[in-house]
Amino acid sequence: MNPTETQLPMRSPLHDFLAPDSIAIVGASADPTKRGYKAMVGLIKDGYKGAIYPINPKVDMILGVSTCASLADVPGPIDLALICTPAATVPGLLVECGKKGVKGAVILASGFRETGPEGLKLEQQVLDAARAGGVRIIGPNTSGMFNLHKKVNLLALANVKAGDIGFISQSGNMLLSLVLEAEHNGQVGFSTYVGPGNQTDIGFNDYLRYLGEDPDTKVATLYVEGFRDGERFLQAAREITAVKPVVVYKSGSTEQGAKAASSHTGALAGSYAMTVDLLRQVGVSVVHDSDDVLPVAEGLGLLQKAPGKRVAVVSDGGGQATIASDRLAEAGLELAVLSDTTRRRLGEILFPQASLVNPVDVAGSTDANPALLATCMEIVAEDENVDAVFLVGMFGGYSIRFAEDLLGGEMRGAESMIELGRRSTKPLVIYSLYAPIKPPALRRLHEAGLPVYASIEHAVSVLRALGERGIYLRDAEGRAPAPAARPTAETEALFVAAKNEERDLFEFEAKALLRAHGVQVAPEIVVHDADELAEVARQFGDQALVMKVVSKDILHKSDAGGVKLNLRGEAALRNAYDQIMSSCRAFLPSATIRGVLVTPMARKGTEVIIGVSRDPIFGPVMMFGLGGIFVEILEDVAFRAIPLSRHDARSMVEQIKARKILEGARGEAAVDKDALVDLLLKVSSIVAAYPALAELDLNPILAYDDGYAVVDARVIVNWAI
Amino acid sequence: MNPTETQLPMRSPLHDFLAPDSIAIVGASADPTKRGYKAMVGLIKDGYKGAIYPINPKVDMILGVSTCASLADVPGPIDLALICTPAATVPGLLVECGKKGVKGAVILASGFRETGPEGLKLEQQVLDAARAGGVRIIGPNTSGMFNLHKKVNLLALANVKAGDIGFISQSGNMLLSLVLEAEHNGQVGFSTYVGPGNQTDIGFNDYLRYLGEDPDTKVATLYVEGFRDGERFLQAAREITAVKPVVVYKSGSTEQGAKAASSHTGALAGSYAMTVDLLRQVGVSVVHDSDDVLPVAEGLGLLQKAPGKRVAVVSDGGGQATIASDRLAEAGLELAVLSDTTRRRLGEILFPQASLVNPVDVAGSTDANPALLATCMEIVAEDENVDAVFLVGMFGGYSIRFAEDLLGGEMRGAESMIELGRRSTKPLVIYSLYAPIKPPALRRLHEAGLPVYASIEHAVSVLRALGERGIYLRDAEGRAPAPAARPTAETEALFVAAKNEERDLFEFEAKALLRAHGVQVAPEIVVHDADELAEVARQFGDQALVMKVVSKDILHKSDAGGVKLNLRGEAALRNAYDQIMSSCRAFLPSATIRGVLVTPMARKGTEVIIGVSRDPIFGPVMMFGLGGIFVEILEDVAFRAIPLSRHDARSMVEQIKARKILEGARGEAAVDKDALVDLLLKVSSIVAAYPALAELDLNPILAYDDGYAVVDARVIVNWAI
Repeated sequence: MNPTETQLPMRSPLHDFLAPDSIAIVGASADPTKRGYKAMVGLIKDGYKGAIYPINPKVDMILGVSTCASLADVPGPIDLALICTPAATVPGLLVECGKKGVKGAVILASGFRETGPEGLKLEQQVLDAARAGGVRIIGPNTSGMFNLHKKVNLLALANVKAGDIGFISQSGNMLLSLVLEAEHNGQVGFSTYVGPGNQTDIGFNDYLRYLGEDPDTKVATLYVEGFRDGERFLQAAREITAVKPVVVYKSGSTEQGAKAASSHTGALAGSYAMTVDLLRQVGVSVVHDSDDVLPVAEGLGLLQKAPGKRVAVVSDGGGQATIASDRLAEAGLELAVLSDTTRRRLGEILFPQASLVNPVDVAGSTDANPALLATCMEIVAEDENVDAVFLVGMFGGYSIRFAEDLLGGEMRGAESMIELGRRSTKPLVIYSLYAPIKPPALRRLHEAGLPVYASIEHAVSVLRALGERGIYLRDAEGRAPAPAARPTAETEALFVAAKNEERDLFEFEAKALLRAHGVQVAPEIVVHDADELAEVARQFGDQALVMKVVSKDILHKSDAGGVKLNLRGEAALRNAYDQIMSSCRAFLPSATIRGVLVTPMARKGTEVIIGVSRDPIFGPVMMFGLGGIFVEILEDVAFRAIPLSRHDARSMVEQIKARKILEGARGEAAVDKDALVDLLLKVSSIVAAYPALAELDLNPILAYDDGYAVVDARVIVNWAI
Repeated sequence: MNPTETQLPMRSPLHDFLAPDSIAIVGASADPTKRGYKAMVGLIKDGYKGAIYPINPKVDMILGVSTCASLADVPGPIDLALICTPAATVPGLLVECGKKGVKGAVILASGFRETGPEGLKLEQQVLDAARAGGVRIIGPNTSGMFNLHKKVNLLALANVKAGDIGFISQSGNMLLSLVLEAEHNGQVGFSTYVGPGNQTDIGFNDYLRYLGEDPDTKVATLYVEGFRDGERFLQAAREITAVKPVVVYKSGSTEQGAKAASSHTGALAGSYAMTVDLLRQVGVSVVHDSDDVLPVAEGLGLLQKAPGKRVAVVSDGGGQATIASDRLAEAGLELAVLSDTTRRRLGEILFPQASLVNPVDVAGSTDANPALLATCMEIVAEDENVDAVFLVGMFGGYSIRFAEDLLGGEMRGAESMIELGRRSTKPLVIYSLYAPIKPPALRRLHEAGLPVYASIEHAVSVLRALGERGIYLRDAEGRAPAPAARPTAETEALFVAAKNEERDLFEFEAKALLRAHGVQVAPEIVVHDADELAEVARQFGDQALVMKVVSKDILHKSDAGGVKLNLRGEAALRNAYDQIMSSCRAFLPSATIRGVLVTPMARKGTEVIIGVSRDPIFGPVMMFGLGGIFVEILEDVAFRAIPLSRHDARSMVEQIKARKILEGARGEAAVDKDALVDLLLKVSSIVAAYPALAELDLNPILAYDDGYAVVDARVIVNWAI
């Protein structure tokens, strides 16, 4: 293999049939309105080089190609079968495919999982037949696929240009929409498209890996209604984003969108906020507006990633410079602070009324000399405070708006920008209000690989994706996942005991587990008899203490009267002990009470919480946020898949809106963020080490300016592991 | 005047020069690159019917028109002068304009307020000259103006189509951008454009009133960096939105955008969140993305307002139906719940696999019969649960994607949609992925006044604007402003005393003012001597009491040790009194202490706050939110201009994100929202009645399930009134 051809070794089994050398069309038809006819037209018209086998027992020839009565009659091997017949016929056809040694089958029919239990049963039959015969399945309920570089256009789409964008989409209309947009745009094209449909066999993770390996694909782009195996998808994305950009549009950002998705592809949308956090964690460029998908994919494919988030705006219109400034700030980007040298150099070539503070506003200086805009871009690109350059205004339209003889200057300016784009390590993103009519200078830019956007909003989405990708790739070291903790005989025994007794860990056990792995937990004593309280009182001295009942049968301790606060001295402890015992026994006479836990009251701090659960789609996921209303009402939380890297842990703390509170808003001391980061990493290591740990809740944790205290800890145990 | 011509009486003085019968061009030039030449080309080429007077002492004739050496030499009257000369010449020219009786002058030059103190001085000279001579000023620092229906195109823009959209923009590039977009769109056109520039004389309020009266303008659209007289603008908008839509794009949504705006037009951007709230209060359609401006303006001009927010989606692609559902929910719109009848009727014409639950997904039913989409739209439009119909998918492209002979069905479908659009009281909003290539059925729709959008996001922004406008207009009664309260001799005396002593109201006075106007305030007693405490203790019985110092010199009572909580019985009161006196005297020996206020501790409740200030741009504005972090960290507050209507007060309470807490999240009782609405209206009435009330703060108010308690009240007095 030639290492210049691709950056990853070719190993995806999907290659066998997504770049097929022979194709059978089951349900090939002489009726021009049928898919079985159109697919053949697509293959023949585009000049597909492989073998085409139309399968139709009733017709001898279609479009000049001899048919076969069945798959068994096909004279040569078949890489890919396109099945155009109704749902009920599909299980039988898959058996035939298996016998014939077909490598992959595209199943167009709908009428499976997405329609209810009967359909789900049929889908299972299809899968069983496929597995038995060693056939891989695309779909069912798919719009089909194409591989334009291989001239396999099974959708028979007209006017779709071959190019760098691979697209996997659970919406056929979304593909059509991007194809139309690309046709209109004029430069951007596609490599491979697949509609994964119900993902019965092949899921997004497999397709992503294929696109990652495909040398014809520079950007992997996905429209996702729901993942089937999110954990594997994250793993694949982590590997692919290291070598090429991955763009995901995820639907189901609202409850009603998620419901619509489920009736469309039978997909479980999952929590949108969580999905977005996890995708970003592995370097995926997530776009929120469907209008942004193509611009962002194109920009990531053509432009340098930005080394950071500091953008220099060069503009010939103050109003649009203002709009750009607003959008950049909203996107989490910064206006670079230009150096004195840069401002001096700009001042030397611009009118006195120009604004030399970013956003740079040339204020008429370029009206008679548009090439000067390129010079301004060069100057700001050389500033070490600048990570990306954003041209905003009417470049390309000077010769239309002002005077025809400015065209020469515009073309010269375009050449300088192209040259700068090649030379500089910083991306040049260009918005022009003249983009819709494609004047010569803009056409030249685009042809040379500098995309031009007709929308400030789209251009800013591209800048954001470039900046986020640059920052993601920069910090490879900080992204090493925290290693799993090493269980000890004692900590393993905690889980064994819980499984044997079919219960979860007691609070004191959960805390012992945490403590064993280096988490800061206050000391505590579990008391089984009131007579032990004298010794407890002696040990804790004059600290205020808390007492909590220990019983697997009492889940809500406070409701049962099982918690007493602010206790000082032996008498108070004895009194509290008696009260807890009697009220818990009254609350639930059948409860087995193991004792009471005594621990010092934690001093006042900022309440934060950490939660871990094993998500059915994405596997173990950690949540972090501030306690109380922040979680319950404002849903202001951050999610990361476990294991976390140091970067992940740090970014969780930075991401939440309430971070200002952690930073000491309202006159309180700033909390020790490093200690929280360390805690998040320790919890990640613990979860990774104990498969039987099903859920974990540290709620609340009190964060201080010099560390933290875990006040309550809950560990749910999976008895089956 | 013919009442069918316009809906408002013609009374704007701007009409005299924004629809001028004669135009002088000061600085007319024979050089084709100069504005003084281009403006003449624009007038002549477009066939302007009025008189054109080029002013140039050095040239005899320009473009076949004889010049005059000066304004004084012009033979006839001049409605409008376009001044193309540099800033320094402008004051002198304005004097000449005055002498000649010129009605209005467009001043293109920059170099005024936006450049600093020297420029501001020059701008003042211009204004003085204009006022002295009775000349109105557009600009300076403006891109100019056009009135296409009058064929006055002073920008000499090519390819700009006359139409219904009036546009006032502090960005010339924004105008160019919309003109390009409109050219591309092919249907939409403009009436009058003005760049208000520095708004030295004429502000947005005046221009808005002009557009409101202009019979050629169906939609008033504004790009605003900053208002000069926001209070008048709100008044004008309130009147205009009642008869035609007003669309505003306000820049400065971020700190860095606001800074950029200020260096562009010298505008103070003001708080973005507040501005948006106040604009919405008076029925303005505020758009957030610059890409949305033209689609929303076009949609509001062409379509029926929606009677509500319940949208029915009809789609031929499940993926795009999902995207539409997400975007609708994010925009605050709802998916209508379709009636059984509607679902039955849809079921009769669609395939069994179609989804009859909104979003309706025809699932292939229309592939061979696209006109069926129009039938689906008719059926859902007849459902009384539906306020607007949203077609999503590939209509217009069936004949391209499937078979050419579907064109007939598409054209029939388009005619049915046009007919439905005329007949129904509900708007039809159409998104088609084929919109960019303008196939015949979509061209027909657009020509007949049904706009077609190429973006789901834009279409949803239009639906949102239509729904919000419909709801705004529906509830005219609930929008009556709360009348001003009637001051009494006692309440007036509070302000007189404060002014005389050059202080603000004492807390007990502020509470007395509130109480006098029906606000629920706990009883309180102000004590001037410790011996009065026996009687106080008797009166309040065994309630827990609060004691606070009363002194105009002590602003932060707690810091001075001036507040004591939870006091019971005479001894505790006496002790607290002594402590307050001694610590306040130690804190500030010079302080005059008027006494101490004693009042019962308020029972626990949900903390809310009301603040009133007199905004320099918008006048008296009320803020409402939850206390503590909600205001300080999350900035989760609502603003309304005073006087409030009942609708305003209700919507303030509904608008904040923390409303879930008011509704009883986290197991607490829901608060009495009606009582809060009543309180907001009472505060509005009070503020409207006392011009000397400069600021008011009720913080905290404790909201209960059966009312509220104002715990602390502060009134700042304007001594000058």
